[in-house]
Amino acid sequence: MSEALSGGDLQRLRQLNVVAALRVLRAEAPLTVTELAKRTGLSRASTEDVVRDLLGRGWIGEVSPTAGTVGRPARRYRFRADAGRLLGVDIGGHKVLTVVTDLEGDVLHQARIPVAPDAGRRERLQAVDDCIAAALAGADTTAEQIWATGVATTGLVDGTGKVMLSDSLPEWTGVDLVAQLRRIVRGPIRVENDCKLAALAENWRGVARYAKDVVFLLAGLRTGAGLIIDGKLHRGFANSSGEIGALPAVGWERAPEHLHGWLSPGEPVERVFLAARDGDRAALRAVRGYVRDIAIGTSALVLTLDPELVVIGGGFSRSADVLVEPLRRELDRWCLRTPEIRVSAFGDEGVALGAVRLAVEQVESTLYGDAVPAASLMF
Amino acid sequence: MSEALSGGDLQRLRQLNVVAALRVLRAEAPLTVTELAKRTGLSRASTEDVVRDLLGRGWIGEVSPTAGTVGRPARRYRFRADAGRLLGVDIGGHKVLTVVTDLEGDVLHQARIPVAPDAGRRERLQAVDDCIAAALAGADTTAEQIWATGVATTGLVDGTGKVMLSDSLPEWTGVDLVAQLRRIVRGPIRVENDCKLAALAENWRGVARYAKDVVFLLAGLRTGAGLIIDGKLHRGFANSSGEIGALPAVGWERAPEHLHGWLSPGEPVERVFLAARDGDRAALRAVRGYVRDIAIGTSALVLTLDPELVVIGGGFSRSADVLVEPLRRELDRWCLRTPEIRVSAFGDEGVALGAVRLAVEQVESTLYGDAVPAASLMF
Repeated sequence: MSEALSGGDLQRLRQLNVVAALRVLRAEAPLTVTELAKRTGLSRASTEDVVRDLLGRGWIGEVSPTAGTVGRPARRYRFRADAGRLLGVDIGGHKVLTVVTDLEGDVLHQARIPVAPDAGRRERLQAVDDCIAAALAGADTTAEQIWATGVATTGLVDGTGKVMLSDSLPEWTGVDLVAQLRRIVRGPIRVENDCKLAALAENWRGVARYAKDVVFLLAGLRTGAGLIIDGKLHRGFANSSGEIGALPAVGWERAPEHLHGWLSPGEPVERVFLAARDGDRAALRAVRGYVRDIAIGTSALVLTLDPELVVIGGGFSRSADVLVEPLRRELDRWCLRTPEIRVSAFGDEGVALGAVRLAVEQVESTLYGDAVPAASLMF
Repeated sequence: MSEALSGGDLQRLRQLNVVAALRVLRAEAPLTVTELAKRTGLSRASTEDVVRDLLGRGWIGEVSPTAGTVGRPARRYRFRADAGRLLGVDIGGHKVLTVVTDLEGDVLHQARIPVAPDAGRRERLQAVDDCIAAALAGADTTAEQIWATGVATTGLVDGTGKVMLSDSLPEWTGVDLVAQLRRIVRGPIRVENDCKLAALAENWRGVARYAKDVVFLLAGLRTGAGLIIDGKLHRGFANSSGEIGALPAVGWERAPEHLHGWLSPGEPVERVFLAARDGDRAALRAVRGYVRDIAIGTSALVLTLDPELVVIGGGFSRSADVLVEPLRRELDRWCLRTPEIRVSAFGDEGVALGAVRLAVEQVESTLYGDAVPAASLMF
């Protein structure tokens, strides 16, 4: 190179080299410096420089040589997913669920605290604090080790992490979750609507992993939706996509009443699904009424987007065996083409996993900078 | 370069050079070889080679030197939009509209033939043939000069250009438009649903030019929708997106009845809009009834996607001054956030313009090959 580079240029170049090496090391098995140089296209000197840098930061580690190697083996390096920790928080109507994970999003510890649906703001926020403390303790992790936090909440969330509007939890509207979490953890904190994050989790590690266009249905005591379009979470212009349930004609508000009508006061909802599975006619009618009501809004989403998949998640997904067939029949009634219906394997933990994914994306944008769109990373 | 290149490598390299030069020449003012070499990063020798090639093919031309230039000016070259022609065809319920354009999509001649809504398949296809002949003659163009053809039709279209399903024109289901057009023109022929293409036209050259997420509403004797998501036409898994009108609760089928109820038999629909504009109470009620019916489905689309814009196009958009305010009020009733509403400036010509855009995209993918995604072209 004949032209002189400025200090800024050199730093930028070095940063690009670090990004290139990290991407390769995260995606592949442990590599030697020679292999890493080949994969990244960097010179050997630059590669050695980058490896020294990453070892110093603790982001990569040396792997012990494989047994049976003859002679003195070359050192191999890998990305250290345990160099930091992530926190995922799901603040729901009935519970708070918190997970501590490594930098790849693999769960180290999970804590859960039930909260009454009619609990006030203060009580719910206290449960959030307690649940985070429990998860950190269980994972033997200090708040300082958390690199990034993802938070899922019911309601619409604005760009700063404030809850703009919550129908199901009236006292929740206006709560500033970033400020609340900032008291506990360092590092970036991102907040997002729970249905959107559950959809993200399915596209990341769930049953919608290889699908481009997905309607995710959160089926539980509330009904909600999250959309994956062209392989990405679709947020909308004001982060308010998927809110088809706001349309009265859609009947999502009243849908669970069919189930409650069958139950005795205080009985858990699972009872009606169990009874339907056992062939109880009244329970079957209740389930069919519920499905009829959620099917109109689901059909509106399907007719709008023509997705490859509909994924059923949320609390009721554990009872999906009695839901899927009636839902398919209803969609057949209304839709031009009924998409494949799949059931989430995450139960009511999908939302928290989506919150973890948000934290992973945050770490990626920190590690790799703006030059690399998160969607293009092989992760 | 120390390694020898194979013949295939050389050809590929040459193709990449041609693509690089074409992209620059299409996006910019006329350039000299020196300027083109600088912009593309090619060597002077390679640039001269490419320019010779493109001149030979007729894709670029030499521009006359500007008056007042001192000394012998360097030759300047520009992309020749008139090197070929494109054909856009809109086959609607009431008319066939055909345009011949240059390679940038600028219209050279337009022809229109009215068709009765109850015309059979054969009669409509004859009108298509006649209308194409009229547009070609008017543009002084032979069928051989057409590089690519875009066709818009009512109904759902499959991947091969066949109409899978047409509600409004029953005899139209199953018609093979590619085979029909192949008899007349050479070059690639692409067929797409009319609402989708009208949405594409707005995002290309219309009022939604700079918007990422758009709900386009085709308001006319039929009501339909096309979606732009993340700056691209959203087609869906089976090319069936935007079909919210299929849901009976949505009321799009019955919406125009409000207008017909006010009209005397045989009167054109515009009459009711004119009367409403003049303050006729019964006409205002009819328009309000129409708007109420299209607003539910529009709200379903808006609540699903949370778009930046709603664009009203189609035949009724010329009367949009009496439609927009009532529609905004209805959307305010149902939507969490009412997007900005804009009115198409294309009237009933937007669909044909979208068909042209389809032909332009086809030419781009031919010129630039698969290596360059059409969306990334500065056009």
